[in-house]
Amino acid sequence: MTRRFQIFLITALLLLGGESNGQDTTNVLIVYYSAQGHTQAMAEAVAKGARAVSGVKVKLLPVAEATTKDILAADAIIVGSPVYNANIAPEVQKFINSWPFEGAPLRDKIGAAFVTAGGMSAGEELVQMNILHSMLIFGMIVAGGPNWQQPFGASGIVAENPFQTEKQFGKVEAQFLAKGEALGRRVAELARR
Amino acid sequence: MTRRFQIFLITALLLLGGESNGQDTTNVLIVYYSAQGHTQAMAEAVAKGARAVSGVKVKLLPVAEATTKDILAADAIIVGSPVYNANIAPEVQKFINSWPFEGAPLRDKIGAAFVTAGGMSAGEELVQMNILHSMLIFGMIVAGGPNWQQPFGASGIVAENPFQTEKQFGKVEAQFLAKGEALGRRVAELARR
Amino acid sequence: MTRRFQIFLITALLLLGGESNGQDTTNVLIVYYSAQGHTQAMAEAVAKGARAVSGVKVKLLPVAEATTKDILAADAIIVGSPVYNANIAPEVQKFINSWPFEGAPLRDKIGAAFVTAGGMSAGEELVQMNILHSMLIFGMIVAGGPNWQQPFGASGIVAENPFQTEKQFGKVEAQFLAKGEALGRRVAELARR
Amino acid sequence: MTRRFQIFLITALLLLGGESNGQDTTNVLIVYYSAQGHTQAMAEAVAKGARAVSGVKVKLLPVAEATTKDILAADAIIVGSPVYNANIAPEVQKFINSWPFEGAPLRDKIGAAFVTAGGMSAGEELVQMNILHSMLIFGMIVAGGPNWQQPFGASGIVAENPFQTEKQFGKVEAQFLAKGEALGRRVAELARR
Repeated sequence: MTRRFQIFLITALLLLGGESNGQDTTNVLIVYYSAQGHTQAMAEAVAKGARAVSGVKVKLLPVAEATTKDILAADAIIVGSPVYNANIAPEVQKFINSWPFEGAPLRDKIGAAFVTAGGMSAGEELVQMNILHSMLIFGMIVAGGPNWQQPFGASGIVAENPFQTEKQFGKVEAQFLAKGEALGRRVAELARR
Repeated sequence: MTRRFQIFLITALLLLGGESNGQDTTNVLIVYYSAQGHTQAMAEAVAKGARAVSGVKVKLLPVAEATTKDILAADAIIVGSPVYNANIAPEVQKFINSWPFEGAPLRDKIGAAFVTAGGMSAGEELVQMNILHSMLIFGMIVAGGPNWQQPFGASGIVAENPFQTEKQFGKVEAQFLAKGEALGRRVAELARR
Repeated sequence: MTRRFQIFLITALLLLGGESNGQDTTNVLIVYYSAQGHTQAMAEAVAKGARAVSGVKVKLLPVAEATTKDILAADAIIVGSPVYNANIAPEVQKFINSWPFEGAPLRDKIGAAFVTAGGMSAGEELVQMNILHSMLIFGMIVAGGPNWQQPFGASGIVAENPFQTEKQFGKVEAQFLAKGEALGRRVAELARR
Repeated sequence: MTRRFQIFLITALLLLGGESNGQDTTNVLIVYYSAQGHTQAMAEAVAKGARAVSGVKVKLLPVAEATTKDILAADAIIVGSPVYNANIAPEVQKFINSWPFEGAPLRDKIGAAFVTAGGMSAGEELVQMNILHSMLIFGMIVAGGPNWQQPFGASGIVAENPFQTEKQFGKVEAQFLAKGEALGRRVAELARR
């Protein structure tokens, strides 16, 4: 950092100081669709992880309740969907298609994804990526989880041995919820910067 | 079927009859790369499944030993790779890049894929699909496994709970080997037609 | 071919001969969604190509008019969609999600895809593949076009230089329509076998 | 911004001031493989775009010359590859597989991709995404181009009408080079922050 830039920054900080009143809160929006409660359970885990980061305000909403205002106010958007035939639930895709596009108002926001699926290797990577693909169209910057075991976000398996929770509303195995939580924390930390 | 076509077929069959001596064998080629034995174990399961189909001749080869002649003789080609950083092993990609291209000699052959990966949702779908993408470039027709739990081929997880076999050479959990076997059988049946 | 199998085939052909009255027609179903006419134009090109194959009956329908009966009667299904934010139009995804699943009645049918998109490399490969991914979940066998320049089906670009036809209803450049036609012909030929 | 945080920042800036001597340069590494010069031409366009951002130091290297030290020193890494059979050139994949993994030293670096391909919709999206997939495995944050016409990075078509430059060494149409330049500029700006 050059001396001149340093002085500029200090001056700027002093000038801004008078009116700084919480404007620096980072907003993380978590939006999901859930028919059987599994994706909702993952969404709550993601929210728990994001809330653990100080200075971050987390909003957790089903797609039906999320508005354009929510989207615009968010510094990071994390979208969750069940896997239906190896693709996003139409409800989620419609929601994404409703995001403001002209003028690229979402550019440089951080995006991430999570899913629940029946079986292993049965669409959960593809759906995480499909959510990220759409985010890239909007100019967002995308991130996955914090380690190689969840590179594309977070996924939960609910209908293949030994992870058989499909018939229990909202039940997802702890190891997948932990991935959701780790994703939320990571994205909140990225947005915080 | 029109009467004319029926008569044509019968005549053709009679004419071919004299020299028919096993020409109707269906050739299934299974080619794989394996550094730690896991993909080899899957390959053997795929071969076992394919061999269970009568009238099918199965050839099981590591990529280093497979030749252009093997590729051209096959009615179906099943390629296996470990997942390295969410992509095919370079050894496998180089092998695919060596396939004959001019004149599209592989057009309409059946193609399928299997992989082994460290974690769940950590690249195993993408790598199965990457193998299929390349096959589509060559004009092949591609198929996955026989049911929705293995739509893109067959995958084995070897380094995530509760599937921790990464450090045991050649050890893959039975439930994944069963997918390999089911894939081999299905592809052999498709090629048989 | 063994002599015994040859005799069996001839007998079967003779027995079947009496009642062969068009039962061997191959059904190709082309289903699409089109908001601005571009995907419809591609669909018509695909249909033209399929109709050029003798013995093939082609049905061309917008998704809103396609029924489960149409799906079940088809030997090959070719699905077309515009690219919206790098994914399938929700109308098309909903349609796919309505296909019969239990008992895998679509297994071994042939599947293919075509799309129209705004720009080059802006989602058209991904959407073709997304359609094929869903088809693989249903156990279908998937194919692309007849050569390496349309490996994943057929795509038309309508809003990037020099292909600027977005604002003309139903106008797609001839070079893309040719791809659609080639796809239709190839899939019809595959289904014919 | 709270008053306390403001004071902390100012103090930190003053303390850091004494030793600030250019440490704040942002390093953008552009690495590519090019057999026929097309990907190199794109790489140079990407470099031109990145160099236009002040405070950014750009390093442009063929994969054969890039070292682990280059990777570790970079704030952003942009990888370029020709499309071979709908996948990354093996040379590029091997390079990526050589990146340091233990301890996740690349986590939170920015990643992006560019490609050259023969035909439209013939693998160029998939290869851009395959590069990004690998980057996500390393914990990188990934970005595409600055607008919806290059959402996954930048691509150049060199062997399909009207873009027939395949046989001219290093020749890529200006409209694709412009995408490369826009990608370089965008990634450099992101890294600069």
